[in-house]
Amino acid sequence: MPDRGYIVLFDTTLRDGGQTRGVHFSVEDKIKLTCALDEMGFEYIEGGWPGSNPKDIRYFEEMKKIPLKYARLTSFSSTRFKDTDPAQDKILAELLKAETPVFTIFGKSWDMHVYESLGTTLEENLSMIYSTIEYLKPRGEEVVYDAEHYFDGYKTNPEYAIKTLKAAADAGADWIVLCDTNGGALPEEVRTATIAAIDAVDKPVGIHTHDDGDLSLANTLVAVELGAKMVQGTVNGLGERCGNANLCSVIPALSIKLGYETLKRENIAKLTKLSHLVSELSNKPHQESLPYVGERAFTHKGGIHVSAIRKNSKLYEHIPPDSIGNQRYIPISDQAGKSNILQKASELGMKVKDAHARAIVAKVKELEAEGYHFEGADASFELLTDELTGRRREFFTVHGFRVHSWENEKGEIWSDATIKVSVPESVAGEGGHTSPFEHTVGEGAGPVEAMDRALHKALETFYPGISGIRLTDYKVRILDEEAGSTAITRVLITSSDGKRHWGTVGVSENIIEASWRALVESLEYKLKKDEEDNNG
Amino acid sequence: MPDRGYIVLFDTTLRDGGQTRGVHFSVEDKIKLTCALDEMGFEYIEGGWPGSNPKDIRYFEEMKKIPLKYARLTSFSSTRFKDTDPAQDKILAELLKAETPVFTIFGKSWDMHVYESLGTTLEENLSMIYSTIEYLKPRGEEVVYDAEHYFDGYKTNPEYAIKTLKAAADAGADWIVLCDTNGGALPEEVRTATIAAIDAVDKPVGIHTHDDGDLSLANTLVAVELGAKMVQGTVNGLGERCGNANLCSVIPALSIKLGYETLKRENIAKLTKLSHLVSELSNKPHQESLPYVGERAFTHKGGIHVSAIRKNSKLYEHIPPDSIGNQRYIPISDQAGKSNILQKASELGMKVKDAHARAIVAKVKELEAEGYHFEGADASFELLTDELTGRRREFFTVHGFRVHSWENEKGEIWSDATIKVSVPESVAGEGGHTSPFEHTVGEGAGPVEAMDRALHKALETFYPGISGIRLTDYKVRILDEEAGSTAITRVLITSSDGKRHWGTVGVSENIIEASWRALVESLEYKLKKDEEDNNG
Repeated sequence: MPDRGYIVLFDTTLRDGGQTRGVHFSVEDKIKLTCALDEMGFEYIEGGWPGSNPKDIRYFEEMKKIPLKYARLTSFSSTRFKDTDPAQDKILAELLKAETPVFTIFGKSWDMHVYESLGTTLEENLSMIYSTIEYLKPRGEEVVYDAEHYFDGYKTNPEYAIKTLKAAADAGADWIVLCDTNGGALPEEVRTATIAAIDAVDKPVGIHTHDDGDLSLANTLVAVELGAKMVQGTVNGLGERCGNANLCSVIPALSIKLGYETLKRENIAKLTKLSHLVSELSNKPHQESLPYVGERAFTHKGGIHVSAIRKNSKLYEHIPPDSIGNQRYIPISDQAGKSNILQKASELGMKVKDAHARAIVAKVKELEAEGYHFEGADASFELLTDELTGRRREFFTVHGFRVHSWENEKGEIWSDATIKVSVPESVAGEGGHTSPFEHTVGEGAGPVEAMDRALHKALETFYPGISGIRLTDYKVRILDEEAGSTAITRVLITSSDGKRHWGTVGVSENIIEASWRALVESLEYKLKKDEEDNNG
Repeated sequence: MPDRGYIVLFDTTLRDGGQTRGVHFSVEDKIKLTCALDEMGFEYIEGGWPGSNPKDIRYFEEMKKIPLKYARLTSFSSTRFKDTDPAQDKILAELLKAETPVFTIFGKSWDMHVYESLGTTLEENLSMIYSTIEYLKPRGEEVVYDAEHYFDGYKTNPEYAIKTLKAAADAGADWIVLCDTNGGALPEEVRTATIAAIDAVDKPVGIHTHDDGDLSLANTLVAVELGAKMVQGTVNGLGERCGNANLCSVIPALSIKLGYETLKRENIAKLTKLSHLVSELSNKPHQESLPYVGERAFTHKGGIHVSAIRKNSKLYEHIPPDSIGNQRYIPISDQAGKSNILQKASELGMKVKDAHARAIVAKVKELEAEGYHFEGADASFELLTDELTGRRREFFTVHGFRVHSWENEKGEIWSDATIKVSVPESVAGEGGHTSPFEHTVGEGAGPVEAMDRALHKALETFYPGISGIRLTDYKVRILDEEAGSTAITRVLITSSDGKRHWGTVGVSENIIEASWRALVESLEYKLKKDEEDNNG
């Protein structure tokens, strides 16, 4: 692959990404992500807009105490207000208080925005750009200039759009970044306008795109191939409306496919992890269809694909999943043939005969028709496989349960659960118990917690090993959402004993019952694994 | 805009889209979607692969009874098995039984796939392509040939890749479709290989891309601009791994932005609706970040964007949202300033003073910190606004409730709920009731249904108008999922009385309490609206 030189990465997950509907980063989230981005080797991290958001002021205060290893932190602001002096501008005063080595300033390149949004003249806008950058440049180390709406501006008034870039370059900006702010530009439009920009200014040029037209990466690549040296984007493509260019796509496209240098290879192999971290901090489910880093990116569902992949992964994978820290996934589904089941079983370390595989496929299809889903519930799949191959052991039997929720004396809704279980006589006898039955009650802030505690109380008498299990995730999905409260509910529970993590699934019309089934299988799985360890 | 001619749309949501992880179309789903696609004016609808899936055989049987107005139905299959006669091939026999006017056949263009996946010679593969198409052509009206892995094949052995296309064209295929099956091709690679293909064959060429490299639309547009006349894709970009080219992006890009003719304008304006239908049928939440048709596509969160949009929507929107049937959305969030609140209130037909808007912003921020979210819960937002402006009326007071779940005599988990409510003395008096209190019990297949019934029973005594309310959607989101079963739960309920739909939200550590709060506000909102209607 050719060595096409180095591309500077400018991350704006914390600033533009924070504009995403439904995303609310706390100051702690922002600090955590800044440090993670720094570790990865991003060159610039845009932390926020101190002039617009008190939370961002606090963030920059905190960041003064935290040295970065590699990245340069930048704060963000508009140009000064019209008809004022930069030194009198309140928003710029907040920017200076952030004391970042880099200031990123956005200004208007589209004449319509100058008239309608700023309500000023084309001349005054040029002066706003020039005087803002001239004022800031000696007060920090670098100024990055974001030419907002450059591509839209170039389409309607190319001469003026270029003038705005020149004003920024002449005032001392270190980078001129061409922004497709509305995200609707086409690659050919980006091509024409980028050539004109690179021709007009003597400063390095960057590219900042949005995904409204589903072309953010394509537009980024066009600009880079024409000579842009900086790419702005966000992790997971967070950002206003459809989001910014996704750095998790930009980086592998540039480095793995096109031969540019961006992050180090060992850090590119951490991109999937970074992508999950950002989902977690932004409190969004990780989008499974994301290119490169999504859970589906290397998931092979069709039977033909699965059997081919077992021969040579290149047959249906455009890059090796581990190059970006992702992994191959073979789901269990009603399109799955025997090969998926055999593959899955072998991943789980189970030996399954061909004849059994057929029975398992049939049972999985039947259960999926009822609303089950074994993706994310490997433990339930393993127990099912044990059952159909005659290997499932009965560790305990449940003889009924009740759950009760009411308002307590403090006005809180509280729940308790009573359950009755028994264990095989042999287990009770070995442990020196006079009865194989236990009848217990547990309470908690919700029905699931109450059931979990009652079940633990009952079973720990016989199986002390289960005391270390913790519920780490509890997901509820209402199927057939149109049907309202009587629809089928699927509950996915993830459990951990510190060294092992496992998922179980329960399905029912009743959310209590669905939760209960997933809980019971979680404990059964733990008992099974402990026994295997002891025998192993 | 130039008139660049007509592009044929080939929808494969039912076939390639059905390969999406987690998507399971029933036969009824498939029929429903086929009819919707036909109404929209898609030219080809690929319904399934009868040779691989018994469900697809049933689907094609059913479709024989359903005439399509516009679209041509196509079934899908691989070429014949190696070293056999097409007339003896079982998979082709299934294909013929589908009796569709069009057959779509995929064959191998990549030499590596011929060797490793088929395990045969390059010559035999050419013969498999040729003889399959030659056999099928007189048995239907049209044959579409999908050249699987054409772009990967062209990169490693261009001469052979072109030979496979020629074999298909010579055998009588009506269309030669260039497929980026692994989804990793770059626009420049698509350019080179498409020019070669169009040059080599005398049949019209199509393009079929996948999104593994985040470039499915860009690659589609490159091929179309070079002369490809058919685009294959799926609604919402469903499909194996990261999915196929999303027709909801392809269509507006071609028709609205580039001047090609695809669907009629009035049908393009139904794309958002089609996108929602496919999400519903595939039982997936609608992906909010989708370009053009996602809920976020025209959502403006930043205060600056919101105030600019109020002046001129073109300032921050690349196309008018109604051109694809989408709409502008101004969320209520902690980045929202007063302008968002005022905009939202005016959308809801409420008058809010500036001073109140500040108090509402403060309260919304406080509640969001607890886990509330008013996106999708306009009714709860309206009640909150009433409260903070001193206009919230007390229709009823809840004096406690209990919910109880247990196993009934049939082994089903069943729930009942008891509640006590009172209404103002004046309401009780007007209705001729001796007491303002009601103490009721309701039962159901789950706690939410039981609570809903008990609440209705109690309140219908005083307010008969609420009897027509139906829960149409019930969504549960566990916040801070890491914390397991004691995490905060947010419940969103959508209700309908036939003419009006409204959303309410409840948040609590306890799922029962969160559901209860959303339920109570749903009824309160209905009572408020009925009163407003009565007061005219």
